[in-house]
Amino acid sequence: MKNVRLMVVGFGNVGQGFTQIIRDDAESLAERFGIRFSVIGVNDMRLGSIYDPNGLPLQGLLDAAATGSLESVPAAERGWSVETMLARGKPDALVEASFTDLQTGEPASTYIRLALKAGINVVTTNKGPIALNYHELKALAQEHQACIGFEGVVMSGTPTLALGVNLLAAAGIQKVQGILNGTTNFILSQMEAGGSYTEALAEAQKLGYAEADPTGDVEGFDAAGKVVILSNLVMGADLRLADVARQGITQLAAEDIQAAKAEGKRWKLIGAIEQDGSHVKASVKPIALPVKHPLANVGGATNAVTFTTRLLGDVTLIGSGAGRLETGYALLNDLLAVHGEQNF
Amino acid sequence: MKNVRLMVVGFGNVGQGFTQIIRDDAESLAERFGIRFSVIGVNDMRLGSIYDPNGLPLQGLLDAAATGSLESVPAAERGWSVETMLARGKPDALVEASFTDLQTGEPASTYIRLALKAGINVVTTNKGPIALNYHELKALAQEHQACIGFEGVVMSGTPTLALGVNLLAAAGIQKVQGILNGTTNFILSQMEAGGSYTEALAEAQKLGYAEADPTGDVEGFDAAGKVVILSNLVMGADLRLADVARQGITQLAAEDIQAAKAEGKRWKLIGAIEQDGSHVKASVKPIALPVKHPLANVGGATNAVTFTTRLLGDVTLIGSGAGRLETGYALLNDLLAVHGEQNF
Repeated sequence: MKNVRLMVVGFGNVGQGFTQIIRDDAESLAERFGIRFSVIGVNDMRLGSIYDPNGLPLQGLLDAAATGSLESVPAAERGWSVETMLARGKPDALVEASFTDLQTGEPASTYIRLALKAGINVVTTNKGPIALNYHELKALAQEHQACIGFEGVVMSGTPTLALGVNLLAAAGIQKVQGILNGTTNFILSQMEAGGSYTEALAEAQKLGYAEADPTGDVEGFDAAGKVVILSNLVMGADLRLADVARQGITQLAAEDIQAAKAEGKRWKLIGAIEQDGSHVKASVKPIALPVKHPLANVGGATNAVTFTTRLLGDVTLIGSGAGRLETGYALLNDLLAVHGEQNF
Repeated sequence: MKNVRLMVVGFGNVGQGFTQIIRDDAESLAERFGIRFSVIGVNDMRLGSIYDPNGLPLQGLLDAAATGSLESVPAAERGWSVETMLARGKPDALVEASFTDLQTGEPASTYIRLALKAGINVVTTNKGPIALNYHELKALAQEHQACIGFEGVVMSGTPTLALGVNLLAAAGIQKVQGILNGTTNFILSQMEAGGSYTEALAEAQKLGYAEADPTGDVEGFDAAGKVVILSNLVMGADLRLADVARQGITQLAAEDIQAAKAEGKRWKLIGAIEQDGSHVKASVKPIALPVKHPLANVGGATNAVTFTTRLLGDVTLIGSGAGRLETGYALLNDLLAVHGEQNF
């Protein structure tokens, strides 16, 4: 049995979802993968920072988070910074699930660099650092013989990167097209069912799919971040956000949606990447797809990606793009890949 | 650079497709995966058997196969049995692509056992041995510290088993549903477009999707074999073909297809596996799916599978179910998994 001691940075939905999974599935993870996870430290901007070398109580962490503070959880140390906890706590892995920022990638990028430089493995669901600094972080991990896993940055726990980067590595990926943002796909599905953009957005906000300021989703920034990540990982490019030709869904009116419907088409916000000679072309824009297209039938908040390959033709993966347990699963799967034994 | 010496048994479409890939992609495989493949032996019931410790010419093999005999290929030895070639040729891996038989699994099972007992890795696209003898062959491989790869037995090179067995291992798979036979899906798609069963079958035979005796496909035997494989691998069951409740598509008339269409539904031949207490329930039967279902929109000879999981919800993979290069890719990917270095 292998004991893996974790430090969790960012204890919001994703950090809590992950903790819930390792609490509920502790026995089956031990039995099937030979791994016991313990959380020795939690650091959250809002809830506080606690550390205990003998492991924190998982149920206690979840209960305390619901009250807005980790004060009530018994711990050996309190108030440590991430830097201190990495240096003095020496976890086996950093579970990085703090707030995402596609402009600066901070503070997540700083935390990830600190861990990797100390030879500590990192798993993250944070798009910012990977969209902005993938090549640098990968080199840093190699230099310090640490691993970095980030399956959750595209399509939550749906194993999109493992498929594109590993399983299709030798198939010759020529093109990638995807519905990479659940919020906009939900809005377009609602509009197709008859609502206006304003009504659909309000519904998405009510259900927690869209934030109060929906710009990041509806103007295509979130999808563009994922397009950059896929370009750099799957196509070996070195793109920045500004290299993605980006158009959101705010210019689509109810009439456009209904006109497409009448023609047997459906508007989808499509992130696309294509090899163009030695160059990689990347875009995010609304496309009216024929209903027979595999991506046209992906409705609601679901995500999907189609890899067009030289040897295998089209391979499409459809799955959840967000969610507490779904994204928590990405962290678990990355940890199993890093610390587990191959079970195939 | 690692040199991997292969023996190919069965030099039909799949064996030739694989050979074509390692010929065309030799340089990129060497560069990206650090592997050079050579074929030191080929054994085919129809074309003959040749061996050369220094490697056979790949283009020469493909040219000779087109003439119906391997006679013209320069070789050190001719007429060796599979047993002799494994014992005296000592390949690093056996590429097993001989004729499939879901009743006996022979002669493929015998070849696979011979190789594993000699500590030789095996990759195969042959459903028979895996549907009939998976648990035995896996144990044999472990005993002799050899690996066995068989991604191609379900959905050709589309990495269905890697997804279900590896990437979703910790997600809690509760149910699997799939379109696992391209021939019947093609026939049903043709019937939906307006043809009769007889016309659709004739078209499938003309295009090479269906054999002269189509029983194995249209009565659901082929899909049932894949259901057994998925049950045993993904759900940890120990089912036999006879445990699958099986019904083919021959009782579906053009009227049934059109009636479903009028109701917004589509008939699909669905292989299904479900955890039922401690028991695994498996079936193959035609189901009229609502057109919104992700499997309802998989048309023509394409295959697809939906894994319903506890942590991730539904994960659907859509891709090619057959084809020379598509199935050849499965062999290549298995070989890279066995002999290559992790590149993620």
